[in-house]
Amino acid sequence: MTIITLTTDFGTADSYVGVMKGVILGIAPDVHLVDLSHEIAAQDVRGAGFVLSRAVPFFPDGTVHLAVIDPGVGSRRRPLLITTSQASYVGPDNGLFTFALEEASAEIFELDRPEFWLPSVSSTFQGRDIFAPVAAHVARGVPRHDLGRPIKDPIHLPHVMPQRHGDGHVTGNIIHLDRFGNLITDIPGGWMGDSRWCAEIAGQRISQFGITYEDAAPGALLALVSSAGTVEIAVRGGNAAARLGVGSGERVTLWPEA
Amino acid sequence: MTIITLTTDFGTADSYVGVMKGVILGIAPDVHLVDLSHEIAAQDVRGAGFVLSRAVPFFPDGTVHLAVIDPGVGSRRRPLLITTSQASYVGPDNGLFTFALEEASAEIFELDRPEFWLPSVSSTFQGRDIFAPVAAHVARGVPRHDLGRPIKDPIHLPHVMPQRHGDGHVTGNIIHLDRFGNLITDIPGGWMGDSRWCAEIAGQRISQFGITYEDAAPGALLALVSSAGTVEIAVRGGNAAARLGVGSGERVTLWPEA
Amino acid sequence: MTIITLTTDFGTADSYVGVMKGVILGIAPDVHLVDLSHEIAAQDVRGAGFVLSRAVPFFPDGTVHLAVIDPGVGSRRRPLLITTSQASYVGPDNGLFTFALEEASAEIFELDRPEFWLPSVSSTFQGRDIFAPVAAHVARGVPRHDLGRPIKDPIHLPHVMPQRHGDGHVTGNIIHLDRFGNLITDIPGGWMGDSRWCAEIAGQRISQFGITYEDAAPGALLALVSSAGTVEIAVRGGNAAARLGVGSGERVTLWPEA
Repeated sequence: MTIITLTTDFGTADSYVGVMKGVILGIAPDVHLVDLSHEIAAQDVRGAGFVLSRAVPFFPDGTVHLAVIDPGVGSRRRPLLITTSQASYVGPDNGLFTFALEEASAEIFELDRPEFWLPSVSSTFQGRDIFAPVAAHVARGVPRHDLGRPIKDPIHLPHVMPQRHGDGHVTGNIIHLDRFGNLITDIPGGWMGDSRWCAEIAGQRISQFGITYEDAAPGALLALVSSAGTVEIAVRGGNAAARLGVGSGERVTLWPEA
Repeated sequence: MTIITLTTDFGTADSYVGVMKGVILGIAPDVHLVDLSHEIAAQDVRGAGFVLSRAVPFFPDGTVHLAVIDPGVGSRRRPLLITTSQASYVGPDNGLFTFALEEASAEIFELDRPEFWLPSVSSTFQGRDIFAPVAAHVARGVPRHDLGRPIKDPIHLPHVMPQRHGDGHVTGNIIHLDRFGNLITDIPGGWMGDSRWCAEIAGQRISQFGITYEDAAPGALLALVSSAGTVEIAVRGGNAAARLGVGSGERVTLWPEA
Repeated sequence: MTIITLTTDFGTADSYVGVMKGVILGIAPDVHLVDLSHEIAAQDVRGAGFVLSRAVPFFPDGTVHLAVIDPGVGSRRRPLLITTSQASYVGPDNGLFTFALEEASAEIFELDRPEFWLPSVSSTFQGRDIFAPVAAHVARGVPRHDLGRPIKDPIHLPHVMPQRHGDGHVTGNIIHLDRFGNLITDIPGGWMGDSRWCAEIAGQRISQFGITYEDAAPGALLALVSSAGTVEIAVRGGNAAARLGVGSGERVTLWPEA
């Protein structure tokens, strides 16, 4: 069974997500549907891209990722299908899939074949009317060239990359807060090597760089390499975001200890 | 695979919904389960009926809709199965399925065959003990006449209908707030024709009637035809319910412009 | 199709749960995945055990229950597989499965065969790296002795048991609050027999012991036997936890009426 994942900012109180699933199952009755998140902050395209990019490597080849964070719905932003050697992506052309576009095997298609959409397309819910049916057709094996025309100019989100500086220090950014208030950075864990490090964020120095949360005293701040593979700032048994009063976008500096 | 949808006011923090799914899969191992919403306001029978009625048209024929918003559980309210030419409905007789009862093909059955229920029926959780097993038996193809006896007097919810008045103005009601604070009315989009309209709600006049959210300036109020097919009041990039201080039940008037 | 249930304290805003499902479906493409709850209070091992123990009897034999409430992740707590004559359990050795350990047929295995895990195991997300793949292998029928070595000393949570006293009164504890504010105790409904009872909690006497919520006047407190089979304190159409200002752990006394 092919898997289709769903990522939206629709919440689960309304039936929007259920309706997309009804449309998908009407076309492709034998798929597995997996919710990634429907609690992306409203219209947070960058946050959705992060959540999705971290999940993708853990799904089997051939998975179809449907994502609808779509502030421009009903305007002229293009509907897209992106295929790579491992997965397919269906959603709006607004930078949401920047991480997938960076893969060498990426091919991009503007969805322009209404015969694969619902018969009537609304101006406010193209997740249901265009993206859900196209994801279902991809899962059923419809060739991608039948669904749209190749394009070369999809929208990329600019991003401030983490950096390694000449004197050995590293700078990066908080790009995600998880439910426990852990602050996830974009600094690759692999950069840490065998050195001992200390971190600075929001004017506060963190000298504990651990392997697990239990390497800090209860209630103490620490840095560690997160399960997502990047450096994370946490409080053992507590909420680092609340403690430090910071959120997404905050700058982080790491210094190797002498 | 037959689809069974689930709509409740149980939330997802407890395992009530998971338990209903366990019961269903024990009887009908090959169904697809789709959550519509479990965050219906506690005991909001009318709101649940709205959410469900809007979702039903997007599911394939033969889908079974299980809905448990059941303030009268354990009292003498009857458990029902309703079938139409397109779908089946299983839940309490309290007006939840009023929209389905209005279909010409609707047949109504009072569930009175305990051999299709769990062996022990509690007085507080008939979603698990009666409705989930019956929905599973319907999905497996048990004839409806085996599950209950036909009745003719199910409970309908009265509703204040939207109206077109002699001088051309239209009145209706807010019947739903979505997660973004958009106010959904019961006024059919088809009534709008090619005229230009302005709206009045809570003493505030809205002169922008658009096609998409982007037809309003950022932060401005507008009316438009929602993805559900009825008129909606929204704020571009904002929360109309909070801005206007109104909720479900609020009256809306539309005036054609001269 | 084998069922795998999932219970965590991860919430659904992040993609942690979706990622575990991706890992499972990569190994066992034909399972049914059922969410029990992902809104267990952070690190509430006891609460998770309660939610899980109440759900288990309603799932078909052979179901695999995966639960990850894991304050000790990355430390030396052991990863476990427990099998009983009816179900399998996969998760950390921290008392979460105390209820299952009490079954006569329970066999316990420490998971020590990394060939059944993800190739790289993080110190912070063993739900993804160890427990999800092992649950999938169990569902596929890998013999339990291949997955780990038998052990005899799993961690049990101590619990204060409900008691029947010589003079006929009964004491117990609130062990769960549901979404509606109903207070669920650990006092078996079967202890109530045909007597009439009154309850005392937080210095307040409740003289109504009913069968359904409707046995109380609107807004009134009552006790009844809950759908989980234990005594519950509720307010008809209201929130008992808020009314009484109590939560989990609160003591309850029941007196038979003369």
